[in-house]
Amino acid sequence: MRFLQPALIVPLLLGTGLSVLLHPERLAAQTLPLPDHLTSLTSPEGQALLLESEAQTDFIPLMSQFVTQVNQAFCGVASMVMVLNALGISAPAAPQWDQQYFTQENLFSEKTEAIITRDTIERQGLTLAELAGILESYPVRAETYYGGDVSLEAFRQLIAANLGEPGNFVLINYLRRAIGQERGGHISPVAAYDADTDQFLVLNVSRYKYPPVWVKAEDLWQATNTVDTVSSRTRGFLLITSLESAGER
Amino acid sequence: MRFLQPALIVPLLLGTGLSVLLHPERLAAQTLPLPDHLTSLTSPEGQALLLESEAQTDFIPLMSQFVTQVNQAFCGVASMVMVLNALGISAPAAPQWDQQYFTQENLFSEKTEAIITRDTIERQGLTLAELAGILESYPVRAETYYGGDVSLEAFRQLIAANLGEPGNFVLINYLRRAIGQERGGHISPVAAYDADTDQFLVLNVSRYKYPPVWVKAEDLWQATNTVDTVSSRTRGFLLITSLESAGER
Repeated sequence: MRFLQPALIVPLLLGTGLSVLLHPERLAAQTLPLPDHLTSLTSPEGQALLLESEAQTDFIPLMSQFVTQVNQAFCGVASMVMVLNALGISAPAAPQWDQQYFTQENLFSEKTEAIITRDTIERQGLTLAELAGILESYPVRAETYYGGDVSLEAFRQLIAANLGEPGNFVLINYLRRAIGQERGGHISPVAAYDADTDQFLVLNVSRYKYPPVWVKAEDLWQATNTVDTVSSRTRGFLLITSLESAGER
Repeated sequence: MRFLQPALIVPLLLGTGLSVLLHPERLAAQTLPLPDHLTSLTSPEGQALLLESEAQTDFIPLMSQFVTQVNQAFCGVASMVMVLNALGISAPAAPQWDQQYFTQENLFSEKTEAIITRDTIERQGLTLAELAGILESYPVRAETYYGGDVSLEAFRQLIAANLGEPGNFVLINYLRRAIGQERGGHISPVAAYDADTDQFLVLNVSRYKYPPVWVKAEDLWQATNTVDTVSSRTRGFLLITSLESAGER
């Protein structure tokens, strides 16, 4: 267990008081305060949970593609961009770089406009079904699970299994205030699962607001079992797989 | 050593042939090919190097703030944004989110325009001295080391020591073709050091082009010992520390 040593260990040994002087608390200085039951990934405790986590195959591919949502309604758009780039799906042109790469600008197409227009997303964000629809306008499969339809056991098992396998990813749609954050519905990638503490690591695309956090499985499940007033259905999660074979690209 | 298990282990056991089918090669499908002597962080080998690396304290704070340069000249701008956000330096307003957070738009100020204008950066990028100057227009210290002035031993020792300590970061200015990449001068954060293989992990802010890669210390040092025609000096690296006390924020 050499990961993050020795710097991780030092603040743990020194205790919370001195570690504030050293570094970790300062990382969160400009983001909003976290409730006690959420653990920031950038804290020594959060890094220790990652060390011990049982399912984290998706962590490095997702972190390598981490982006901040470009406006307050684009959490779903930013989350999709991360997953599509992490999967290596053939991307639209990104003329600013003369390269092909998914961005929060070029994700939109005639197909996605037919599902929901970019302008409507800017006003009201995305429902779980619209999120799946946009993803499936690209060569991926997005299996949709509504929070009201799955037990805690199924929620935990389905997501943890995905996080332990390469080549597929999880996006979650949840109510922030149900986990003690501000405030409404939100969409983010899930990056790891720690069985000992039964917590998921939720990467947060509104990075100006919160760091990635560890959340109790039950709290996260409850936060998906909340009604999205736009769809009149509960929120939930997507299991996302590429349908593109290597030969196609 | 449970990090990234079991998914990391499986492709390693299966060997390169089958692992291509599973996942890792697909992650790089749209980026440019890497020469054999560079190892992508997203490959099983790259993840194994991270597992074993001796100095990686900066890895999670930097990955949590990973951004893509918004245009082809803003590698330095994007790299500074990552470091300033990772340090938790008091940031300018980001009106799109009604929050304070460094971006590739709000980094610029009267002070930075006096060092080099945004327009000039868009045309020619940044020299090492300009990079340090912009950083020091914020409450940080940027110790400057020119590649032509440091031995390989000093280069290795100074950077690895920083990577093993919390609360400070490294930006490197190097010639890409000297490490076998396309093509000119580039600036990126360094995130980890592996002593066994004597390699540094260089995060690459032109994510549309290359993944983060492990580079031999000697190759990276040589790539900093190259002349930047704008400054007529060699490239090099910066060791960056916050000068802001917790009380000031």
